[in-house]
Amino acid sequence: MLKDFVKSTPPEADVLKQRLKEERAKLFGYQMKLKEARLPVMVIFEGWDAAGKGSVLGKVIKNIDPRFFQVATMDAPPTADQLRRPFLYRYFVEIPEAGKFKFFDTCWMKEVTDGVCRGTLSDKEYDARIRSINTTERQLTDNGYLVMKFFFHISMKEQKKRLSALKESKNTSWRVSEEDLWQNRHYDECLEIFDRYLNDTNRSNAPWYIIDAKEQKWAELQITQFLNQGIDTALKNSAYAVPILQNTFRMKQMPLLKDIPLDKEISDEEYKDELRKLQDELSELHNEIYRKKIPVVIAYEGWDAAGKGGNIKRITEALDPRGFIVHPIASPEPHEKARHYLWRFWNRLPKTGHIAIFDRTWYGRVMVERLEGFCSENDWQRAYNEMNEFEKELTDFGTVVIKFWVQIDSDTQLARFTDRQNTPEKQWKITDEDWRNREKWDLYEEAINEMLQKTSTSFAPWYVLESVDKKYARIKALKIVVERLKKACRKAE
Amino acid sequence: MLKDFVKSTPPEADVLKQRLKEERAKLFGYQMKLKEARLPVMVIFEGWDAAGKGSVLGKVIKNIDPRFFQVATMDAPPTADQLRRPFLYRYFVEIPEAGKFKFFDTCWMKEVTDGVCRGTLSDKEYDARIRSINTTERQLTDNGYLVMKFFFHISMKEQKKRLSALKESKNTSWRVSEEDLWQNRHYDECLEIFDRYLNDTNRSNAPWYIIDAKEQKWAELQITQFLNQGIDTALKNSAYAVPILQNTFRMKQMPLLKDIPLDKEISDEEYKDELRKLQDELSELHNEIYRKKIPVVIAYEGWDAAGKGGNIKRITEALDPRGFIVHPIASPEPHEKARHYLWRFWNRLPKTGHIAIFDRTWYGRVMVERLEGFCSENDWQRAYNEMNEFEKELTDFGTVVIKFWVQIDSDTQLARFTDRQNTPEKQWKITDEDWRNREKWDLYEEAINEMLQKTSTSFAPWYVLESVDKKYARIKALKIVVERLKKACRKAE
Repeated sequence: MLKDFVKSTPPEADVLKQRLKEERAKLFGYQMKLKEARLPVMVIFEGWDAAGKGSVLGKVIKNIDPRFFQVATMDAPPTADQLRRPFLYRYFVEIPEAGKFKFFDTCWMKEVTDGVCRGTLSDKEYDARIRSINTTERQLTDNGYLVMKFFFHISMKEQKKRLSALKESKNTSWRVSEEDLWQNRHYDECLEIFDRYLNDTNRSNAPWYIIDAKEQKWAELQITQFLNQGIDTALKNSAYAVPILQNTFRMKQMPLLKDIPLDKEISDEEYKDELRKLQDELSELHNEIYRKKIPVVIAYEGWDAAGKGGNIKRITEALDPRGFIVHPIASPEPHEKARHYLWRFWNRLPKTGHIAIFDRTWYGRVMVERLEGFCSENDWQRAYNEMNEFEKELTDFGTVVIKFWVQIDSDTQLARFTDRQNTPEKQWKITDEDWRNREKWDLYEEAINEMLQKTSTSFAPWYVLESVDKKYARIKALKIVVERLKKACRKAE
Repeated sequence: MLKDFVKSTPPEADVLKQRLKEERAKLFGYQMKLKEARLPVMVIFEGWDAAGKGSVLGKVIKNIDPRFFQVATMDAPPTADQLRRPFLYRYFVEIPEAGKFKFFDTCWMKEVTDGVCRGTLSDKEYDARIRSINTTERQLTDNGYLVMKFFFHISMKEQKKRLSALKESKNTSWRVSEEDLWQNRHYDECLEIFDRYLNDTNRSNAPWYIIDAKEQKWAELQITQFLNQGIDTALKNSAYAVPILQNTFRMKQMPLLKDIPLDKEISDEEYKDELRKLQDELSELHNEIYRKKIPVVIAYEGWDAAGKGGNIKRITEALDPRGFIVHPIASPEPHEKARHYLWRFWNRLPKTGHIAIFDRTWYGRVMVERLEGFCSENDWQRAYNEMNEFEKELTDFGTVVIKFWVQIDSDTQLARFTDRQNTPEKQWKITDEDWRNREKWDLYEEAINEMLQKTSTSFAPWYVLESVDKKYARIKALKIVVERLKKACRKAE
């Protein structure tokens, strides 16, 4: 795309001024419409060094109320801390909330093309990054985000001129880095790399717009025009149903809930022995994964009163408190609801060497959100693949993802509910909502079966914990965690 | 995608039967909804040889009234005649009309992957094909088409078994070709090639669905499910506004109409001399382009009464009647209106060595259709890029594309209209509509200016013919045609 791009001819100064005035006013007017429609707008600025991204950004945001936008400056390389999470983490946590703009002063493109320029990113890694980026941009637009991507383009000569001017002045010379000069000396090679990236990520859901950045006002006009056009289109599409992609990840066959025998149990004595042995082992392994910098996600889902809490406790008892965190997941807070439904989980990802345990998870999308109508049918149907893609992103980074379904039958639930109701110190554990959910047992069972079938991938399979005997379930969970961590440690050697 | 795909487990026979019954009924029910919504559905079957595409197709169409579907069997290589037009031609002319299904028993995938398997398609050609295919699929879905792509997958063992069974029977042995056997022997290489193609063309607007084709009924169930899901999604999206892509083709700078001097003229004598000389030259060149197999498109647009007809006549006078055709373009017929707006032009593309002259063209989309509201704003805004892509497809094939804008001023038009009105033998040339259009002169001028700015690409630029002096315009047109054909002939040497 970049190679064919010829610098445009800006209109005469007075025409430019007039048109800029119009487009600025239009952008100003869109703010409230955005808010009403709860449309999140992610604006990405990429381009050549010294192309003027910062200055134009400064102009564009003048037309927007500061309450309605934020700027994320991402052009520094990832920090040591950020490197301990998947590549996309530091960007994903920055996505805008519904009804607001977020401007990215460089985004995932720069990190990838810098890697190619420096030769630190292999072809295979490059391909993986492109896949991750295309997947994420699709996930955002599928979930109602407007993603506008601008590439600021200047010629080699223009870049050289600007860098020299900056260097000559005492006040600005610090802004010219070795890298900027390197880029100018290797302009043609960089052009190839940029062009390849733009082509590889130019999709109709999130297309690239190349900006002729030779003159600042002209660049601003181009940006505001494209931005207004994009917002206008997006506002018309509030009822858009997204085509549902096939799930093509390798799947592990799962049984139907009704076919799972629940008579498994363990004696008190055996329980005590096993528990001690396994917890000791897990304790050791926790040190090992810390040293080997392996991140771990343990995800719990299960029926109300199935025994998730006690099960989690038997895991955490064995862990060093400095190296794990338990995330109880309730209904999303307003600021979480205002973003992509996976955002609050991206936000809680463990660093390398750490364990994050989720008490309820992103699978709420295809259970409670599906059944209570908190999202559209199109949303939850799409979600199976989206969650598999999310877990793929984690496991590709090296994360061990362990997913437990804690299973009991309806009679057991009733017995435990009744017990809770009748035991004063347990009454806080039972609510009207629990009883209401219980009435929908059959609908839930159908949804859970579909979830288990569609999200038990080879890289992040579900494990069913038969929990009529809670002790049995705890031992089984510990065994699985120990086994998975052992395997990961061996692999990391 | 294919490499990760694991054969699924079909449900029990009775469950399968029941679900198939439900999905068939659903598909049956969609027919009328499709018709009401005027939704065109393009269904593409690709896959391994002997995977059962034909048999499953036979089953699927049983649920559709024969008036609502057609089958296009495309698995033969292109004929000699088809090879004389751009790669996509033979497929594009087959696209379904609004409200109907068209099933493709193999489509552009097979032609491309066959080329790769046989080593007749270079990497560069492969990349160009992929670009063409992704562009075309996007153009279709952007214009309201539902494109459903199915890949029939079987294992090497299963394919071998089926080919052997076919071969053994006297009645079916003729169906096993050398190619089928070759494919089975080179299964792993073909898998790589197929997988690469599927990944390269798997877009959210037209995603791939891989079908486990081991059992026919199970394959049919998968197909009908995906098909119903796709139709359901598409029916919800009748008001979808498509993101508008930036036009990144290299552009030729064009003047505004008001800045074009119209005082150019030519003496009768010079006209006569030049006409004879240029027509002789063109006559020669027509032979040459025929021998060199160069296809030519000459596109005329211009104001009413600007002199298009007379101008075209001076071109055709010089041509061998067996080698050219003039297409007068009026409002689309119902069967044309029912398809992508470029379909009727794909349908009229010249063969290699032939000249097609269009008296009015696809640019009606951004003139009359825009101004009369025959398409949405989103439609015509998108059309500039779509038409550039269309012309790129033609010129990449080697077609010479010459576009004329025949320009007069408003006063000249009025004089010519009045003359037509007052001259009995010219009265047929003037209608009430001409007068009505004339009232919209300023709106048209704005639209034409935008069109000239946005579609004068380096590969298919516009030429303005100043036609207040019609003779001057004719000579200019002839000169340009001669020059362009000469250049193309030299290049083809």
